[in-house]
Parts: sequence; structure tokens; C-alpha cells
Amino acid sequence: MRNMIIASTSTIYGSEYLEYLTPVLSERLKGLGISEVIFIPYARPGGISHDDYSNKAGLAFAKMNITIKGIHTFENPIQAIENAQAIFTGGGNSFQLVKMLHDLELMMPLRRAIYSGVFYLGTSAGSNICGLNIRTTNDMPIVQPKSFKATGAIAYNINAHYQDPIKDDMHMGETREQRIQEFHIYNHLPVVGLREGSYININDTSEILEGPHHARVFKPNQPAIEVAPGFDFAVL
Amino acid sequence: MRNMIIASTSTIYGSEYLEYLTPVLSERLKGLGISEVIFIPYARPGGISHDDYSNKAGLAFAKMNITIKGIHTFENPIQAIENAQAIFTGGGNSFQLVKMLHDLELMMPLRRAIYSGVFYLGTSAGSNICGLNIRTTNDMPIVQPKSFKATGAIAYNINAHYQDPIKDDMHMGETREQRIQEFHIYNHLPVVGLREGSYININDTSEILEGPHHARVFKPNQPAIEVAPGFDFAVL
Repeated sequence: MRNMIIASTSTIYGSEYLEYLTPVLSERLKGLGISEVIFIPYARPGGISHDDYSNKAGLAFAKMNITIKGIHTFENPIQAIENAQAIFTGGGNSFQLVKMLHDLELMMPLRRAIYSGVFYLGTSAGSNICGLNIRTTNDMPIVQPKSFKATGAIAYNINAHYQDPIKDDMHMGETREQRIQEFHIYNHLPVVGLREGSYININDTSEILEGPHHARVFKPNQPAIEVAPGFDFAVL
Repeated sequence: MRNMIIASTSTIYGSEYLEYLTPVLSERLKGLGISEVIFIPYARPGGISHDDYSNKAGLAFAKMNITIKGIHTFENPIQAIENAQAIFTGGGNSFQLVKMLHDLELMMPLRRAIYSGVFYLGTSAGSNICGLNIRTTNDMPIVQPKSFKATGAIAYNINAHYQDPIKDDMHMGETREQRIQEFHIYNHLPVVGLREGSYININDTSEILEGPHHARVFKPNQPAIEVAPGFDFAVL
């Protein structure tokens, strides 16, 4: 039993924080009778403080009449996860996020909560930790976590903010596709490239692509394929 | 006593592998009487094999009448570094490169060789390992090294393939500058953003920016500054 929304990004171009997700989130949380969400602010985008980040999330959820509580305000964060009605992990730096989750021994409680059916929303770095590890993050490794392992809430890795190659680009750095192909030299896990505005809607065993874009699926030793909204990633 | 060329990239747009560096390299190696370079192919760009990568480097150096020997062909790679006339570490994935260097216990021998004056050429990932750690790499963390620590051949970190923000970009991922600013939330080391075509020419205590571009220098709690070719990074 899982109940999740795994989004490429919190914010699409020209729109407010979480705005594009508000209709689907609002309906989902109302249906589940959820009034409070535990927020995990550890990814700290731009180095924002845990308090400021929780306030930012709080403002977006207030529009849905939902209260946000930052996990950093609990004396016992493991209990906070165990008792949560719902959990939201915001984006930012995946290395810092995973470092904190490992240092505080929260990764396994988070995994258990997700598999027990607690509603989970992830955006960007918060979506990366739904995969088996953060080896397909785009983030800079500004801190060194004990381990790259993540929750394994899904059986593949996410590449958030997936970007197609820029036509006629004169920059010699690798494209996103080349990076994921290099990942497959050393790893056998499928990777889902989620474009900004796409999200995976998980209800128990179905893992459906939603939003306006196709997603790009990478498997080792196979050409990448495009899948349309409505595709069920549970087949991967 | 150090003797190094630390380059943003091996290859500039529209040019062959190492072509833009060949004049300066050729003169430098001739002046030092170097006939053989030990090549470190571990970063494996695109997953290329150690042999194929060494052959590619060999072709570029053959034009300078220099022989390349891949370090992977030595029974004792530590001795290979200790006995090297010169060392070249090619680009690719910084995590895989650093993983191999730590697994094979080559990081400290490499540092000692550099400080003893053995000529060192780094491009891209091979330049990242000249800094104190690889926390400012742009690469995907496709493997997990024991440590992010690097040689510390210079007293700052490199950001290779430095890219300016793309004007009017609708993508919501972080810019390179934002990533380096996040690095400075957790780290105090200066960072040099080296644009493609730029390199640092190190002769003993001078660390001069060369090539056609300015470089961008980042320090914690200070606005980034642009420095022109001829700038000496030793002042950082």
C-alpha cells in the first residue's frame, strides 16, 4: 500500500511554489482526511533555513487548509515520521538531504511510513530519495553523506528536472542523457527522466505518469524510450 | 615546486581532442625533456574502456612525439606514479575517478608526485582532483567513492566547464553560480569557475589563468568576481 506523488519540481516556470500541484494535492489530501503534513526541509534550496523553508511550504499548504510542521521542530524526528498523517519532502540539495536523513537515522522510518500507506509528496530532491539511491541526482555534491542509499519506495531511480539536449549547444559538458548512460555502465537500475511539470501518481501498485509531458525511460543496454502520460511505471 | 596545467576541458567546440592545448603542452614537455606520460584513464567518459581511452590520449600525444602509458597497464600503479616523468589525468566522471584513486590508494602518491615537481596535466575531472575535494564537480554521482577528498594540489576547488546562466532560461534547476553558492553554505574553500578553453598554468608558486576567457572566483559571503587572463590564483 503506497500513496504518493513524486514530482519533478515544486515550481514550474511562471508559477508560484507548488501552484501547479495544488488542485491534485488538495483533492487527494481532502479525500484522505489529512489536516497536517510533516515537512522535511533538510535539502535547503539556496541554503534557506529549516524554519524559513517550512514557512514557505506552510504558506502553500495553508491555501489547502493544511497545517505544515517542520520535522526539525520535533524533539524526536523518528517519532514524528512514525506518527505522521502525511509527509512532504521539499527540493534542494539531494546530498545534504540524504546526509541528514542518514545522520538522523530517518531513512528506514521514512521507507516504512511510505510502505504503510502514509501519504508522501516529494518534489525534486524529495523525489530523488524515492528511488534506490541518489546516483542520478543533478545536484552538486556539496556535502558527503554516509551513503547514497535512499528509501527504495520505487524500484527505479528518478532523474528530476529532466532536460533534453540543447540543439546546437557549443558547451562540451555531458548531456543529461549521456550522464544517465554513464550511470548504466556501473548500475542496472532503470531511470525515469521526469520533465518539469510531470509527476508520478502512486496508488498502491499503480505508478502513473501525470502532467503535460512525456517522460524518458532509460534501461541498461537499451535505447531510451519516451512514455506518455498515463504510462504505469510499475511495469519497469 | 609544482609544474601543472589544470584545464577546464580537454576539447573546445569544433576542435580535436587536446588540440587547443597542444602548442603550450608541446613546448612545456620539450623544455622538461619529457618523452613519456603516465595516463590516468579512470574517469572513463561515456564508459570508454581504460585501453580505448589511453589510445585516444596516445594519439593526441603522438603528435608531440610523446608516448602515453595507461596506469592500468602497470602491475603496481603506485610505483608507476612514483617513477613517472609526467602524469595526465583525463576527464570523465569525477566520482568514478576518485573512487578508483581511493580504492587503489593512489591519491596521496599523486599528491606527493605533484608537489615533488612531476609535470601534471589535468582536464575536467582530472582538474577537479587538483582541488581539496570533488564537492564542486558537475558530474552525476554514478558510483560512491570512499571519500570526496582529492589531492589538494591547489588551495581551492575547481568548477570545470563553468557555465554562465542561460538568459531567459525557463528551466527551474539551479544555475552553476547558485550551486557554488550552496557549496559555500557548508564549505569555506574558494572555488574557481574555469570556462571551457581556460586553464591554470602552475610554475612553482605562480598559478596563472591562461586562455581566452575570464574566470569566475567564488568565496563565501562575498559576491563572485571575474578575473582576467594573467591573474594569479596563488593569492586566493
